Amino acid sequence: MAEDSLKGYRGEARAVLERLGISVWDDVEMIAAGNSFKGVVLPRSETADDRHVVLKLYNGYNIGIAASKVESAVRAGSREAHYKIPEKEFPFNPGLPRVKLLGTGGTIASRLDYRTGAVIPAFTPGELYGAVPELAGICNLQTEKLFGIFSEDMGPIQYKAVAEAIGKEIEKGVSGIVIGHGTDTMHHTAAILSFMCQDLPVPVVLVGSQRSSDRPSSDAALNLMHATRTAAYCDAAEVMICMFGPTSDKYGLLHRGTRVRKMHSSYRSTFRTIGDIPLAMVDRSGFTYLKKDYRRRDHGRKPRINPVFEERVAMVYYYPNMHPDMITGLVEKGYKGIVIAGTGLGHVNKPLYEPLRQACEAGVHVFMTVQTLWGYTQMYVYDTGRLLMQRGVVPLANMLPEVAYVKLCWALGMSGDHDEVQKVMTTPIANEMTPSEPPDGYLILQGGVPEVRQMLAGKIR
Amino acid sequence: MAEDSLKGYRGEARAVLERLGISVWDDVEMIAAGNSFKGVVLPRSETADDRHVVLKLYNGYNIGIAASKVESAVRAGSREAHYKIPEKEFPFNPGLPRVKLLGTGGTIASRLDYRTGAVIPAFTPGELYGAVPELAGICNLQTEKLFGIFSEDMGPIQYKAVAEAIGKEIEKGVSGIVIGHGTDTMHHTAAILSFMCQDLPVPVVLVGSQRSSDRPSSDAALNLMHATRTAAYCDAAEVMICMFGPTSDKYGLLHRGTRVRKMHSSYRSTFRTIGDIPLAMVDRSGFTYLKKDYRRRDHGRKPRINPVFEERVAMVYYYPNMHPDMITGLVEKGYKGIVIAGTGLGHVNKPLYEPLRQACEAGVHVFMTVQTLWGYTQMYVYDTGRLLMQRGVVPLANMLPEVAYVKLCWALGMSGDHDEVQKVMTTPIANEMTPSEPPDGYLILQGGVPEVRQMLAGKIR
Repeated sequence: MAEDSLKGYRGEARAVLERLGISVWDDVEMIAAGNSFKGVVLPRSETADDRHVVLKLYNGYNIGIAASKVESAVRAGSREAHYKIPEKEFPFNPGLPRVKLLGTGGTIASRLDYRTGAVIPAFTPGELYGAVPELAGICNLQTEKLFGIFSEDMGPIQYKAVAEAIGKEIEKGVSGIVIGHGTDTMHHTAAILSFMCQDLPVPVVLVGSQRSSDRPSSDAALNLMHATRTAAYCDAAEVMICMFGPTSDKYGLLHRGTRVRKMHSSYRSTFRTIGDIPLAMVDRSGFTYLKKDYRRRDHGRKPRINPVFEERVAMVYYYPNMHPDMITGLVEKGYKGIVIAGTGLGHVNKPLYEPLRQACEAGVHVFMTVQTLWGYTQMYVYDTGRLLMQRGVVPLANMLPEVAYVKLCWALGMSGDHDEVQKVMTTPIANEMTPSEPPDGYLILQGGVPEVRQMLAGKIR
Repeated sequence: MAEDSLKGYRGEARAVLERLGISVWDDVEMIAAGNSFKGVVLPRSETADDRHVVLKLYNGYNIGIAASKVESAVRAGSREAHYKIPEKEFPFNPGLPRVKLLGTGGTIASRLDYRTGAVIPAFTPGELYGAVPELAGICNLQTEKLFGIFSEDMGPIQYKAVAEAIGKEIEKGVSGIVIGHGTDTMHHTAAILSFMCQDLPVPVVLVGSQRSSDRPSSDAALNLMHATRTAAYCDAAEVMICMFGPTSDKYGLLHRGTRVRKMHSSYRSTFRTIGDIPLAMVDRSGFTYLKKDYRRRDHGRKPRINPVFEERVAMVYYYPNMHPDMITGLVEKGYKGIVIAGTGLGHVNKPLYEPLRQACEAGVHVFMTVQTLWGYTQMYVYDTGRLLMQRGVVPLANMLPEVAYVKLCWALGMSGDHDEVQKVMTTPIANEMTPSEPPDGYLILQGGVPEVRQMLAGKIR
């Protein structure tokens, strides 16, 4: 018998199924303690006990049958998995704020189908309430699925749809908006929404999860609670990402939409504020504001929704020995804007000077950021920087490369005029450029130095 | 009088020069306490005292003249700055190891010419000894300037020259090699040398500085001392970067050549080991090895120097809404290899699937890395990854994008054969892929959370 035909079963429960020749997803009639149960054998999670066989009965309920009581089983066939998260009516509480959850895709509050690897999302208020009952104590939740795509497939159509949906919900008077989003490009979406949706009266909070809800280490429920709490009560009326804190599950962090980046492909604490500290911490008891310069919640403020996006913009991440055709190729293909992520203070090699000059002369808008991620462009320090600026390349201080990319798409969506684009790009709109970086805004410490080791051995796991 | 015509002068000294109408770089005859001094008025550093005027006398010596004693001065003209760091003969000590310093450019142990902004490098053993006398207690130093370029201009010609020079020096029996290098692309050079120079018998240490030596906060002297000490005595015979530690000037860190990245455009603690902990700490008293799996020093081991490099390789850093012509353009232009830095676990959007399939079919070698920098590609988890692999894209575990780029240049320099390239790329050679990342290898902490704030307020500055 192939091992994964008893997915998740161990010990006594596994032995019984093996003895009876039953696999997961088999449609069976099982006799246990004199009773007959008809249903589908469900797979179990790795952390489940080893003493029960779980059936999904035809009435939809799951039942755990003690393996020691199982007398016999007759296999009637095999079923595809179509199980749903139990849906309960989301209780309406007139005393709680109204929050809208807009779905774009992603794996928040979902369950993995062990058979196909497919993710079964919980999304209606009732499903979410069934999965995370604490939500009902936080707010009155409404949900709307805008689309369901992987976040790497997000693009202008989706950005515009989300921005417009935000505008509509604010008009309807919600206390805050949560956007369920895959984590891969959550920071890109947070950045473009920071430009498309200005003067927000209430928080707009992007949230996702790094681990699907069926896994014991899932961050889904906590992230969702923190995000809805933020939408409902947080005083910062900005576009933010709400995700798992750095080292413990005690709190979530609120990151500014233009100063955040995904920094680990699989850890739950993947999102990090870059070149600054996070805006706030959020836990069950409320908010600890770490910064003071945020825009305050004001339900009377009118937002400006400006969902424009020019698609012919490229981001070029410089590497040594980059050949001129990496720039000339973009000009030939009609790209209107280029964001370079240069080395050090904003540098590229000499062979790119002339193609960059030609690109600027041809009307392509070229901007410089730093691939170190932390720190500022400083193009006056070395010849390289001065010569690049003479050729028309404009430095963007400490704007993150990805943020500069979406901002240039947005700026060129409004105007192709050289001076206008320059002005928009070099004027901070949503803290995408800051006058200084606090010393504790750098990735200060790292394992392998004694101080951190001591600390790791102590309070912080 | 323009302010910087008295560069660095404050207080009493500045007042005297102002009164006499003298600027820095003026060629003067100055009468003080009845004596006549002929020479050039030198600029002063920000931390110099405010009671002396400094002249470079015609005999080459500098002299500080008490401002209070200056009676008069006659200006005879103005001179360009051509002052040199005082050169002293580097003392030979037969009991100390021999270390070779190969120069490529960069600002280590240099002085800024205040007038032109140009950097005057100290480079001969005598100049370095004059600037950093502690070096003579560490080793017998020899120097050779291979070239003098900004590090962003480093490319295959330089990589090959450095690799070959390393081979020659090892043949001559040096105890270790230091490579002076600009910081911008130091990690790219460290990575390519890790592939070009294998089975090293002694350490090869790249070093530079983030602040030129004339600045009080310079890291140049300390970095140089740490690097020469590492070359002379460290037991790890690998290609390493030796730069300033994270938070204090108490020690330097040794980073593996394939697991390090410049992470801040201006901080001294800019180099960080990614996805691992540093190899060792180095200070005046020696080494604290943080890892155990390094290749031990063995002067009898024969290195393999393989300085090959295929130039038609591109690195593509994925961003949302990337258009297919970013891939088709590379194939049209004859690129032979493409390294993608994808989102999340190694993803790009759907419109790129078909051009990537066509690229692979056309014989272009396409590999996937993660732009999160930390973490692994995991292309089996989502459809996106599986579909990309079906189309020929090969994941590279936790190899950094920049490292994958230089490794692919190197691999294609040896062979264009599909299977051979795949094998080279997916087989770890110098820890560019590791079986796991230690938990403290992630950028664990960041300001803004109470634990870190407490820590910052305490021992660690």
